This record gives sequence, structure tokens and C-alpha cells, in this order.
Amino acid sequence: MNPQLLVENIRGVLIRLEETIIFALIERAQFARNEPTYQTEAFAGATGGRSLMTYLLHETECIHARMRRYTSPDERPFSDGLPAPILPTLGYEESPIRANTVNFNDRLLEVYVGEIVPCLCVSGDDGQYGSSSVCDVSCLQALSHRIHYGMLVAESKYRQAPAEFDAAVTTGDRDVLERMITHPQVEAALLKRVESKTRHHGWDLNGEIPGGKSGLGSGRASKVSPQTVVGLYRDWIIPLTKSVEVAYLLERR
Amino acid sequence: MNPQLLVENIRGVLIRLEETIIFALIERAQFARNEPTYQTEAFAGATGGRSLMTYLLHETECIHARMRRYTSPDERPFSDGLPAPILPTLGYEESPIRANTVNFNDRLLEVYVGEIVPCLCVSGDDGQYGSSSVCDVSCLQALSHRIHYGMLVAESKYRQAPAEFDAAVTTGDRDVLERMITHPQVEAALLKRVESKTRHHGWDLNGEIPGGKSGLGSGRASKVSPQTVVGLYRDWIIPLTKSVEVAYLLERR
Repeated sequence: MNPQLLVENIRGVLIRLEETIIFALIERAQFARNEPTYQTEAFAGATGGRSLMTYLLHETECIHARMRRYTSPDERPFSDGLPAPILPTLGYEESPIRANTVNFNDRLLEVYVGEIVPCLCVSGDDGQYGSSSVCDVSCLQALSHRIHYGMLVAESKYRQAPAEFDAAVTTGDRDVLERMITHPQVEAALLKRVESKTRHHGWDLNGEIPGGKSGLGSGRASKVSPQTVVGLYRDWIIPLTKSVEVAYLLERR
Repeated sequence: MNPQLLVENIRGVLIRLEETIIFALIERAQFARNEPTYQTEAFAGATGGRSLMTYLLHETECIHARMRRYTSPDERPFSDGLPAPILPTLGYEESPIRANTVNFNDRLLEVYVGEIVPCLCVSGDDGQYGSSSVCDVSCLQALSHRIHYGMLVAESKYRQAPAEFDAAVTTGDRDVLERMITHPQVEAALLKRVESKTRHHGWDLNGEIPGGKSGLGSGRASKVSPQTVVGLYRDWIIPLTKSVEVAYLLERR
């Protein structure tokens, strides 16, 4: 079996990504919600009709596409029409997963702007639009990587019990599939770990640190409560990962 | 006085940047040294004669310039000829520092590629060129922000003893200025803090986590020793910050 599908390796990658996600969320929480950065009309003249944040996301994805980011089986872009890689594609001995059309980034973007940012950031506008958009892109890339890793998670689970999964896939029953891929004790351990990591990583972000009125400043450090991050994992990150897993499995039909 | 120049605020920003720097270094250490990404000849056809890493750095700076990153007094670009901001410039009531020409990014780039990466990463080539270059850009941006914050540090110190500084600036004696801005007990406390933070942040990066042969993969987690990061601060990050401070002060002549 491809080593990427071994349970201990998948577990290692997901635990590793927790650090990246928690750190990105803490960085974003330095800045206020900054609604205008998510409005398509606010800077439409300069951004070709996108919001400032999705403009930055698209431009970043164009560069990363040239660095062949989206040739990786566990990466999905938010944008269409990205340029071709300037690096030669790496030779894959064997792709760990089946070719598929799974891409939950539209839904992730909706959840991020509508649910995650309001939980994470103080309301209002601190004018730090560039800085907060840069943080948004880091958060979205880390979250997208995490939820789409669900494809490898699903493939790994499938290979442990192909006959049972084939039966559920044939009937197309999402609820049965979701029950089959859910391990409550693994989720409980994850939430406990995330709680503890956030408490450690956020340790010296108490109080306010004025970054001043700079173009891309340091912002205002706002302590992110461990319970906030636990809530984001429980309500959005885990469910989105499961949606990816189920959608990937259903493409076997 | 501009609140950005208050000692406790400067201290807060520098402590906050420690998290960003340590996290970026840990992320880079997942990947091997990957020498070809620093060689101008390796991908010259696709990068217009730059190394892959400086190509990515330049492209990233173009986007961030449009987000007005380099209108901030504490930010300096690595590249020349960047595009104009698409965001209106923020109104500054008062710039916290004097206009100046200080930019130590060429030296930082040299130190980063020649000294920091070899300390941080296992030697050799893991083929993860895109991923390691993305991490390089994050490291360089965080380090550049940190060392150029030295301009605010110097201005703050100057305002506490303008007559003494003016005397040293007039004679142009770098050694005297360096002694005046050096506080050994502050540096010792910083190194102790960095040691402790790296130990915490690197906690679960033991062992190898194969990210597989992906385009921009998760790489191989390599534990970063706290002593490595302490050494990088002691030998490079603190001295470069002091060079910025002295250069900034000398422009008062």
C-alpha cells in the first residue's frame, strides 16, 4: 500500500496541519473582522470585480499554480483558470487516491467568511485590510489542505473494508457512509489536543499590541480562546472533512 | 510620543514576531535544504533568470505591494520596481520614524540562504521545491519585518537620550552606537524566551511524517532543536537588527 495511506502517516499529517491551522487562526485574530475586504463592491475597480480578499487569494493561487501546488493529490484550488506549472511535474509512482472531482472550496469560503471570521475576530474595522487579507489566504489554504486530506483519509478507510464500503456506496446512502467514517473517540482526542495546543500557542498574545497605522501592520493581538478553536474544529473543520470523505467515496459509484 | 515608539509596545511587537519567526522556521525545517531552488541557473528559463525561490519572493512582493505592504514604515521589500498599491494609502497622523534609505534585505537574503537554511534543514534534496520555497518566502518576510523593526527600536532609544546619540552620530562611530543600543540582559531574556517557545511549538514534530511526492506536500517533519533557533537569533537575527538600528541612526548625520 502507498505509505501515504497508512493510518499512522495520515494521522501524522493531520496533527501537523493542526499547528499550521491554529497558528494561522491566531494570526488572523490580531485584526478586526474588516468586512469591506469581503465585499465585491468595495474595491471592484482595482480587483476586477472581486473582493479584496478573493483577489489576493486568486493572485496567490496563480503563483502557487506555477509552483505546481495543484498537481498534488491533496490540494485543490479556489480559483479556475490557473496558469500551468513552471516546474516539471513530479513523477508519481502511484497516486494514493483515485482521480476525482471533489472540491469543497466554495463551501469552505462561505463558511470561513460567514462563520469562522466572525467567531475569531472582534467586530469592526481596523483599516488593516492588506494584513488581514494576507492572513485570510493563509487560513484558507491551511483549511483547504486539511479538509481535502479527507480524500486520503477516505481512501485509507475504504481499503480497510472495501466490501462494506462498496455496499454503502452502491446504495448512495450518505448517512450510512458518514457513520462508517466517524470515530467519536478519535474526534474527542482531536478536540482535546486542539484545545491544549491553542492554549500553548496563544500564551503570550494577551493584551493589546498596537501595530500602528501601517500598510500591513502587526495589528492588535487578541487572545484566541482555546474553546473558540475547538468550536471551529467541531462545527466546521471536522464536518467539512467528512463531507469531502463522503463525496470522494460516492464517486466510486 | 507616537504610541508605536513606547518601549512596552515595541517589546510587544518583537515578542509577537518571535512566534511568527519560530513557526516559519519550523515549517521550513520540514523540507530538505533543496539547493536547486536557490540556484539562478536551475530554472532560469521559467523564472526570467532568477532562482526559483527569489522568483516566488518577487511575485509575492508584487501582490503584497498592491496590498500596500511597503507603505508601512516597518516593511522593506527585497525587490525593486514593484507595482503601485491598489488600496488607498492609510492616513498617517505622524510617521513614527524619520524618512530613511535603510534596507538590509540583500544581506538578509545572503545570510538566510548561506547560514540559516543550512542550520535549519537536513542537507540534500527532497524534490519539494514549491513547498520549501513557499516556506522560504514566509521566513524571509518575517525576518525582514523583524530586523527592520530595528528602525523603530532605534528611534525609541534615540528619543530617550537625544544628546548622547547626537554626539555619537556626529562622529559616525558605529562601535559606540552599537554599545549604546545594546542591552545584554534584554538579549539574554530574549534568547531564553526563544528557547522555551521553540521547545513548546516544536513539541509534536518528532519523527518523520511522509507527505509523499506531492507538488506542494507536507514534507518530512524534522524536529527543530531550541538551540538551533537560539543560535540563529544570537548569531544573525539580533546582529542584523542592530545593524539596522545603527544604519538608521547614522542617517541623522
